[in-house]
Amino acid sequence: MLELNEYFMRRTFTLAERGHGFVSPNPLVGAVIVRDGKILAEGWHEKYGGYHAERNAILKLAGKKPVKNCARGATIYVNLEPCAHYGQTPPCTDIISVAGIKQVVFAVRDPNPQVRKLNPRRVLRRAGIEVAYPVLAAEARELNKVFFKNQTQGLPYVTLKSAATLDGKIGLRQDPSPVATRRRDEWLTGPEARAEAQKMRLAHDAVLVGKNTVRLDNPRLNIRLPGIRRANYKIVLGARGQFPPSTKLLKDPKAIFTAERDLKKLLAGLYQEHKICSVLVEGGAAVNTSFLQSGLVDEWQLFLAPKILGGDALSIFNSLGIAKLADFYSASLRSVRQVGADVLLNIRFQPNA
Amino acid sequence: MLELNEYFMRRTFTLAERGHGFVSPNPLVGAVIVRDGKILAEGWHEKYGGYHAERNAILKLAGKKPVKNCARGATIYVNLEPCAHYGQTPPCTDIISVAGIKQVVFAVRDPNPQVRKLNPRRVLRRAGIEVAYPVLAAEARELNKVFFKNQTQGLPYVTLKSAATLDGKIGLRQDPSPVATRRRDEWLTGPEARAEAQKMRLAHDAVLVGKNTVRLDNPRLNIRLPGIRRANYKIVLGARGQFPPSTKLLKDPKAIFTAERDLKKLLAGLYQEHKICSVLVEGGAAVNTSFLQSGLVDEWQLFLAPKILGGDALSIFNSLGIAKLADFYSASLRSVRQVGADVLLNIRFQPNA
Repeated sequence: MLELNEYFMRRTFTLAERGHGFVSPNPLVGAVIVRDGKILAEGWHEKYGGYHAERNAILKLAGKKPVKNCARGATIYVNLEPCAHYGQTPPCTDIISVAGIKQVVFAVRDPNPQVRKLNPRRVLRRAGIEVAYPVLAAEARELNKVFFKNQTQGLPYVTLKSAATLDGKIGLRQDPSPVATRRRDEWLTGPEARAEAQKMRLAHDAVLVGKNTVRLDNPRLNIRLPGIRRANYKIVLGARGQFPPSTKLLKDPKAIFTAERDLKKLLAGLYQEHKICSVLVEGGAAVNTSFLQSGLVDEWQLFLAPKILGGDALSIFNSLGIAKLADFYSASLRSVRQVGADVLLNIRFQPNA
Repeated sequence: MLELNEYFMRRTFTLAERGHGFVSPNPLVGAVIVRDGKILAEGWHEKYGGYHAERNAILKLAGKKPVKNCARGATIYVNLEPCAHYGQTPPCTDIISVAGIKQVVFAVRDPNPQVRKLNPRRVLRRAGIEVAYPVLAAEARELNKVFFKNQTQGLPYVTLKSAATLDGKIGLRQDPSPVATRRRDEWLTGPEARAEAQKMRLAHDAVLVGKNTVRLDNPRLNIRLPGIRRANYKIVLGARGQFPPSTKLLKDPKAIFTAERDLKKLLAGLYQEHKICSVLVEGGAAVNTSFLQSGLVDEWQLFLAPKILGGDALSIFNSLGIAKLADFYSASLRSVRQVGADVLLNIRFQPNA
């Protein structure tokens, strides 16, 4: 039974993924209705403000017939605990019960305090419905890592992105040639890695950079991918007055300049005021160091180019004040893969993120 | 036909690999005798001084019967051009001809000048035998990368091995705590990576270290693998008189102390005088830098541990005197894989190595 549970749960993950880019700040959710080992209907949360995955699956199963008892005796699989509250749509627990579903299997509890308060599991059990969880909880949390960070900490999910040489250098100290004006033979990473970096911008609500990057590179920080017209937020660590009028970002309505030096306060504000759920930090050494030391980084996407610059070049981080070897910052490697001629390491800092 | 050629050639690679650790300084060679798409017999170079792969395959096919015409009309596949000269064994071209073989397919020409001089392809063709090559030449050269380096340059194959943090640091500047006395919580890489590093020692004829490593760590540099009793060479960049009497390597009969500062001369000498075909450089920053700058490094095995030490820690290399970004050292990434909690990057410096 366990294996069947995992099989159908993985299917909900695949369905949930289809909502990627359309449902934020909501979580990605998929649902599968199963009877006698066969899938009767599937659904997913398709867009923000639209129906939840459970409702979509049940409505699909009912078709033109009434919902009542349309799924009698069936099991519904869903990658997140169904809601029991009225949000933009009515509670999923209601329609699950009306449809005659016998058992709900969900991957992981919803971290949303509003959901938790009503305890949907109890609501379901009181309606005579069996409830089973957790199933593939770690994968389910990974799928909605942004949502879990938002809900549990009231902060955006933070990804650090770096491109360095094999010896951990991001440029030269003497000649910090601006990225924007670098000739092709001065780029560290290749075209595949740079395209991947653009996809990372697409996957985050905002890009964050420091003063030096804006002054040296004068970047636009848009998402440069064919067919993509999404205007992403740009966060600049520095007040507007600190930059010359030629600064391109000064004219960008989605650019947020901030003099706030407390990164946690800054991030909390971005989440609360702008609904920015995820931030991609494209820092130089100073910004990288501040973020690492703040403990606010969830994930690090590190591109390494097969090049070497030597010990006097610029390191990814400035001094971290480490005096004893055992005091190193510790992380965990989630995955590694070749991207064109370069390599991409995915590193995690938060245990359950 | 091409696909069949590649199929049987790959089989010779697998057979050749069986000689690993037993045939040095000879190349790894496998041979397959095929008729009508079926393998009749296989052979490989089993140990130094023993028969070549071609002879072993033919003798196996003949069994107790005479060699003459035992392989009439067959094709022999071999990953290196057969020899035509008398070495420790008689020429392979002779027995190939006597056995009645119709066609020889080899992967790549032998770089050995003694072999080339006699032009075995011509010898075979004059005996009425068809000859086809190259087949999977790059893979064949990779299989015998040490042999090709030895033969074409008169130098040992050089592998640099490093273990660093994600930000390219190999230790602290202020507190260079000796590797040998590091506590478990001070090690950079995990047990799997350290076992892999021991296998690298096993795969090379010698380990090379600098003065600082010997003074700080006082290592033995033996191969610490269960069941392995091979005494490897240890090369120390420093004269015996420079080390205190407590230095363990002073008592090791396989330790070579050298004051030679010209690395190319040093390596040529190790190859000519000691038949050292491959050297694993386990350097600190100074030795790594000298080797990189010498242009003598063929391969770099770089372990990265999911840790961060910061910009003031010790880099893998010292200054390389790079003043312009475009002047970076360029390499190519051959492969990358996770080893326990760490990652291992295999990097190449020489185009055809």
